[in-house]
Amino acid sequence: MSLLIVGSVAFDSVETPFRSVDNALGGSATYISLAASYFTAPVYIVGVVGSDFPKRYLDLLEAHNVNLTGLQIVEDGLTFRWAGKYHYDLNTRDTLLTELNVFETFNPIIPDKLKKSTYVCLGNIDPTLQLKVLDQLENPHFVVCDTMNYWIEGKQAELKEVLKRSDVLIINDSEARLLSNEPNLIKSAKAIREMGAKILIIKKGEHGALLFTEDVVFSAPAYPLEMINDPTGAGDSFAGGFTGYLHKTQDLSPENIKRAVIYGSAMASFCVEQFSTEALENLSYLRVQDRYREFLTISRFDEI
Amino acid sequence: MSLLIVGSVAFDSVETPFRSVDNALGGSATYISLAASYFTAPVYIVGVVGSDFPKRYLDLLEAHNVNLTGLQIVEDGLTFRWAGKYHYDLNTRDTLLTELNVFETFNPIIPDKLKKSTYVCLGNIDPTLQLKVLDQLENPHFVVCDTMNYWIEGKQAELKEVLKRSDVLIINDSEARLLSNEPNLIKSAKAIREMGAKILIIKKGEHGALLFTEDVVFSAPAYPLEMINDPTGAGDSFAGGFTGYLHKTQDLSPENIKRAVIYGSAMASFCVEQFSTEALENLSYLRVQDRYREFLTISRFDEI
Repeated sequence: MSLLIVGSVAFDSVETPFRSVDNALGGSATYISLAASYFTAPVYIVGVVGSDFPKRYLDLLEAHNVNLTGLQIVEDGLTFRWAGKYHYDLNTRDTLLTELNVFETFNPIIPDKLKKSTYVCLGNIDPTLQLKVLDQLENPHFVVCDTMNYWIEGKQAELKEVLKRSDVLIINDSEARLLSNEPNLIKSAKAIREMGAKILIIKKGEHGALLFTEDVVFSAPAYPLEMINDPTGAGDSFAGGFTGYLHKTQDLSPENIKRAVIYGSAMASFCVEQFSTEALENLSYLRVQDRYREFLTISRFDEI
Repeated sequence: MSLLIVGSVAFDSVETPFRSVDNALGGSATYISLAASYFTAPVYIVGVVGSDFPKRYLDLLEAHNVNLTGLQIVEDGLTFRWAGKYHYDLNTRDTLLTELNVFETFNPIIPDKLKKSTYVCLGNIDPTLQLKVLDQLENPHFVVCDTMNYWIEGKQAELKEVLKRSDVLIINDSEARLLSNEPNLIKSAKAIREMGAKILIIKKGEHGALLFTEDVVFSAPAYPLEMINDPTGAGDSFAGGFTGYLHKTQDLSPENIKRAVIYGSAMASFCVEQFSTEALENLSYLRVQDRYREFLTISRFDEI
C-alpha cells in the first residue's frame, strides 16, 4: 500500500523581483514527495538524476523519509536543469532555460517491490512516460495525474490515454480551458471529466481551487498571503499534500477528498512563502494542521 | 432608517456572443435597487433620466417597491445611454458608446425626507457627485461606495475624500490593484483600508469575492455557473444584495457582514444568468435563500 511518485528531480534557477537562486533543488517529484512526506512515510519516488546531483540533496530527501530506491543515477550524466524568471506580479513567468539532460532518455523503471503500489502520483512529465509507469503497475487503484499546457498541445492523444487510466487530474484554469477548448470553467470541468479522470481539480493560484466529482462542486479558498516569494513548485506541493493526505487516511469519500484539497492548498501556500523547497524542508504536521484551520476560518459563514 | 441608493439609471445596449439587446433597462441605481428590493422595502433612489425614459420602466421599478421620489425627470432631456460588447470569454468588454446626456449636468438633490437616511449606497458615479450626496445627509452611519477604474485614474483625490467618509468600498480586483498600485491583493487591501473605508470588498468575478475588515479576511466562493449570459450589472447587484441585507437585519457584526457578502454574491449570480435586469425582475426571497444555501454547500468542509 505504498505511495509511488513519478516525476522530475532537477536543478532550478529562479529569478524573482525579490531574489535569485541558482541550482536549487527542484523538480515535480521533489516537491510532491516533500509535501506528501508530512502526511505519510515513506514515500517512494521514481525519477532520474545525473552524477552531478549532490549528496546533500539526496540526504535531504531521505531525511524526509523519501525512499530513493527508484531514483536512477546516470553515471557521467547531467541532471535536468530549469531556469525561469518571474515578473513583478508573480503570475507570469518566462522560461529562460530547459536542459533535459538525463531526462531526455529517461525510461521510468518501477522496482519490483513497488509494482504493487496502489496510490500513484504522476508528476508533470511526458504522458508517454506516465503511460509506461501505469503499464508496469499491477493494480493501481488511485492514480493522480498532473500535466501542463506543453503536453496538452503536443501530446494530447497520449494524455487522454493517461486520463482514461487516472482517477484524479490536477491542472490549472488556463490548462483546463486549453484541454477542453471551453472558456467557462464549469462547462470545461464537465468536458474534462468525460475524458476519464472522474475527479478533477482546477487550481486557480491566488483564487483557490475547484474540485469536481460526480456529485460535488467544491470551491476551496486560497490562503491570503501577503508575501509570495517563489511560485515554483506550488502545483506539485498541492498534488503532494492532496495525495499524501488521502494515502494517510485511505478514505476516498467526497468529504475526505474535500479535506485533501484543503491540505493540498495548505502545502502550496507554504511552498510559495519561501524559495525553492525551503519551506517544505522545515514544516511540522502541527503547522500544517494550523494552516488547515486557518482555511476554515477564512471561508466559514453561517447557515440561515 | 431608509435605504438610499444613488447612481445612474440608463438605457443599455449589450452585445454578447449569444444575443444582443437594445435599450434595455440599465444603470447602477437600477441594479442596486432591484437587488436590494428582495431584502428591504421600500428602497429610495436618487438619479436622473430624460423624458424619453418609458413609463413601463418606471412601473417596473415601482412594482419592486423602489421609491422614485428622488428620481429627476428632465423635460426634453435624453436618458444616459451605454453600449458595450462582450468577448467570447465574457471577462472582457469593449465600451461601444457612452452618451451621458442628462447625466452630464446631473446634480443629485436629496429630498428633505431622505436627508435622515442612515444606510446609503453610492453607486459608481463621479466621486464629486458622491461627495455632494454625502454633504446633504444629516447623519449617514453606514455608507457603501462603489467606483471604477475611470474615477480611480481621473478623480483619485475626490475618490479618496469619499473613502474617508465611507464605511464600505466595493471594487474589483483590477481596480484594487490600480488604486493601491500594489499587485498583491492582500497588501493592496491593507493599503486601501488605510485610505478610509474600514470594510473592503474585492470582487473577483468567476473567482468569488474577498472581504477585509479590521479582524477578518473572508473568502466567498463564486457560484459555479455554466451559463453566463450578460455580466452587465453583476457588481451593482452585489452591492444591492449586500446593502439590502444589512439594512434588513440592522446588524453590522462581522458574521452578519459575511452573510451579506454571500447574499451579494447570490444576487450577482442571478443577475448574470439572464440579460439586463431580467433575472432581478422575477426572483423571490425563497429562491435567494436557496442560492445562499448552495453557496454553503459548495464551500463547506470539515473541521479537523
